[in-house]
Amino acid sequence: MLQQTMEKPSTKINGVDVTALGRTLRLLNEEPKLGAFQFRASNRWIGGGLNRSTVQGFYGAGEEHGRSKAFTMTADEPPVLIGGDQGANPVEFVLHALAACLTTSMVYHAAARGIEIGAVSSELEGDIDVRGFTGLADDVRKGYSNVRVKMTVASAAPANTLETLAKFSPVYDIVSNSLPVELSVETR
Amino acid sequence: MLQQTMEKPSTKINGVDVTALGRTLRLLNEEPKLGAFQFRASNRWIGGGLNRSTVQGFYGAGEEHGRSKAFTMTADEPPVLIGGDQGANPVEFVLHALAACLTTSMVYHAAARGIEIGAVSSELEGDIDVRGFTGLADDVRKGYSNVRVKMTVASAAPANTLETLAKFSPVYDIVSNSLPVELSVETR
Repeated sequence: MLQQTMEKPSTKINGVDVTALGRTLRLLNEEPKLGAFQFRASNRWIGGGLNRSTVQGFYGAGEEHGRSKAFTMTADEPPVLIGGDQGANPVEFVLHALAACLTTSMVYHAAARGIEIGAVSSELEGDIDVRGFTGLADDVRKGYSNVRVKMTVASAAPANTLETLAKFSPVYDIVSNSLPVELSVETR
Repeated sequence: MLQQTMEKPSTKINGVDVTALGRTLRLLNEEPKLGAFQFRASNRWIGGGLNRSTVQGFYGAGEEHGRSKAFTMTADEPPVLIGGDQGANPVEFVLHALAACLTTSMVYHAAARGIEIGAVSSELEGDIDVRGFTGLADDVRKGYSNVRVKMTVASAAPANTLETLAKFSPVYDIVSNSLPVELSVETR
């Protein structure tokens, strides 16, 4: 009780608890190894283009975090790509991950700087020539050739400041730059 | 009626309609511009680390495709990352997108080659040092430093063949290689 009443009350900016954020940043600065996180997913094929991932536990800030319930995500392909359209397709999930991460990165970094944000919305487009995936054209890349993101932000801060803050995004780094993916396949 | 009865019945391998797949591949070969697809997502910030994407229409195979209902995806951050844990976080969505795409790519390419697959499951891990995201360490990358994917496949085909087929994956290409992302921010 005493401890609770003596602690500074939490302050929120942009819905982000900046008291907790400041504490986290100080801890990370004092103990850099707390920055090591490991995220995980399990996926199971259902049939055709349909499969489902489960995300639950992860490691971070020096300990294991087990969520009480798992998040599930269902991927499928639309009929034109020979699927049953029971979920967004994998490259659409990439657009979501990118939009979500740019938004959160902007909002958190703005909160840490005391910049207030009233609203954020974004529209994304990704161009892909499926001849790359099919193997019909070796000179066509398999993934998106490019992605465009238009963010609209209600804020008094300059747009270029907000853009710089959004670019702290881990997913922006992941898709913009190369990342080593170790793939191993085992048959049974 | 005549046309229907004269058409070959659909054949499925791995749940993939290989009759339709063959027809698609022939069309793409004859008319390469049908390969141009554009996928889209809209995202709206809710507060703090919470935001939601909507995926519905896309362009492909020479026409617009409007799904009858939209898919929504909710991203949030866990409490240790100052969020409310109402959804997987953006980098966890990347793992899902990658797992889903490797799986579908393997399954489709196997079907096209007549390789039967009985089951696929995968386990993914991504390492990330959040000091990169926070800006506390300039020499630490913001995204994953590396990702490991272990796929287990029930099939008589050799594991290295299946691995080659999985690597047709567009998301594997997107995360393994660099991709131009044009980000624009507008304030209002």
